[in-house]
Amino acid sequence: MKAVALGGGHGLHASLSALRLLTDDLTAIVTVADDGGSSGRIRRELKVLPPGDLRMALAALAGADPEATAWAELLQHRLGGHGVLAGHPVGNLVLTGLLEREPDPVAALARLGALVGAVGRVLPMSPVPLDLVGEADHFDPDDPSRTRKIRGQVSIATTPGRVRSISLLPPGAPACADAVDAVREADLVLLGPGSWFTSVIPHLLLRELGKTLANTTARLVVVLNLVPQLGETDAYEPHELLALLQTHAEPFGGLPIDTVLADEDSVLDLTDLAGYVSRIGAQLRVSRLAADDSAERHDPLRLSRALQDVLDGAAHGLAGGGASAWQ
Amino acid sequence: MKAVALGGGHGLHASLSALRLLTDDLTAIVTVADDGGSSGRIRRELKVLPPGDLRMALAALAGADPEATAWAELLQHRLGGHGVLAGHPVGNLVLTGLLEREPDPVAALARLGALVGAVGRVLPMSPVPLDLVGEADHFDPDDPSRTRKIRGQVSIATTPGRVRSISLLPPGAPACADAVDAVREADLVLLGPGSWFTSVIPHLLLRELGKTLANTTARLVVVLNLVPQLGETDAYEPHELLALLQTHAEPFGGLPIDTVLADEDSVLDLTDLAGYVSRIGAQLRVSRLAADDSAERHDPLRLSRALQDVLDGAAHGLAGGGASAWQ
Repeated sequence: MKAVALGGGHGLHASLSALRLLTDDLTAIVTVADDGGSSGRIRRELKVLPPGDLRMALAALAGADPEATAWAELLQHRLGGHGVLAGHPVGNLVLTGLLEREPDPVAALARLGALVGAVGRVLPMSPVPLDLVGEADHFDPDDPSRTRKIRGQVSIATTPGRVRSISLLPPGAPACADAVDAVREADLVLLGPGSWFTSVIPHLLLRELGKTLANTTARLVVVLNLVPQLGETDAYEPHELLALLQTHAEPFGGLPIDTVLADEDSVLDLTDLAGYVSRIGAQLRVSRLAADDSAERHDPLRLSRALQDVLDGAAHGLAGGGASAWQ
Repeated sequence: MKAVALGGGHGLHASLSALRLLTDDLTAIVTVADDGGSSGRIRRELKVLPPGDLRMALAALAGADPEATAWAELLQHRLGGHGVLAGHPVGNLVLTGLLEREPDPVAALARLGALVGAVGRVLPMSPVPLDLVGEADHFDPDDPSRTRKIRGQVSIATTPGRVRSISLLPPGAPACADAVDAVREADLVLLGPGSWFTSVIPHLLLRELGKTLANTTARLVVVLNLVPQLGETDAYEPHELLALLQTHAEPFGGLPIDTVLADEDSVLDLTDLAGYVSRIGAQLRVSRLAADDSAERHDPLRLSRALQDVLDGAAHGLAGGGASAWQ
């Protein structure tokens, strides 16, 4: 079973941790527009892909033997102290060096994947570093519909306004060809969980990738978040987040979403969500997906079971009905 | 044949490149007092061993297969740009992360050695970072015998004065136990080439290591430099450099030097050198050791042949006589 997960950051880590329980023919497609933290510091110095989300995806796919684990832990290790190196994960610096030496990021990531014995592979959504531009409203209490442009992943993720739409710079940036091929050949494609505007939607904005997603014959599953991102998406109900996906995929005719997965405690009112999901011809599956130790983290086993059920085409658990069957 | 090379920097790289042609039971013992370049920048941020000379020794011992070569090249790769990361070799940052996570530097170096398929192993001379203190004269034209203390490897290597002696901080720092064992079990021990005061002599100053070197039954070979280090040793003739070794090893009764290897074009007057070598009961072998493309670099093959001849106990090539036989 060929699976593809698109996203970035902790959300992608969660979907990969679940998918690897189902298959080892697994491709992670990672946003490359981060401008915060260690990746942002590196990007301000060097014209390389922001390495952080790529590194985190590799860690999620790392092998279980002691050697692979030790390297994966080292790549995740953040340098200490209080100087200019402090906080950089070793893996970000290694990947930066690899990307400086190797013009093809797919080859650079394959090398690092081999080091950590990765199940599957990690690809950037684009071979070139990108920037996000958001359009947001609700800045001005007297005129909430007035919009402003916001540039950069960090600014968008933390804006006090309400993000309405997003675009990529440079315009017309290429998608990673291997990523497009992976989607084309996939049996299962996962969008989300993750920061909606900065990790999930960006994949729809690269022409070749968006078009391929819009035309996929794979089961396209959208995994909703457990908690809204403060600032970025706390103004939106779950069904509105799905609508935002469709709006951004409009140039390609929208997304053929097969299933929407939601955690049973994270959707306060199922009516609107179920209604929207039904209108776009998808099915809604509601079950417990959160980890026991944290309501902000998907449990890999629970998420993988839900995905397996999607693949099995199980007929229960549709919205409004058998939510309890999923506990 | 068990061989040990003690040194640091490019000099150690040269001796290791020669020794690996003779044996794979090879231990590099590396100075850990560097405070310049990338290592110095790292030390000013973090309390780890200066990684640069350790990394360079690993590169000298890296395996020849493409995988090992690629990793070794990455570890040697210096990050670009003009920011705070610029100039750091990737390997220095990886080793820094390993040393932060792994309290035993021998284990950290073994892990990195495995990555580059190293022939033999690389050990620090001490498990703790050290500082050098030099005593130098010839600062004051009116009173050239007046001495000053100079602290730090960079300051010592570039002093306008004449270094007379050197010591280590903290006093009584431990030697690396594995390094002491390696010298104890060695058949061949190499001192030099390298920066005399900052890469070669420091090994004699750690009590356990100095004592073991002074009592070694291995063939102890001193490889003289091709060119004097400007500032550090340009005030000294080759036989005076040997005498400096003996002076610093005096607390342990001096070094039982078996052979001194000198390049035929690097010693202007053999008389003093041959006389000194003879007085300490060693033999002098003079041959062409410099590389064809650079008079400042030992040719690994030529140096390895000279070392093999030492091991074979060949009787020719003694000072003043058959120098031409060594070309």
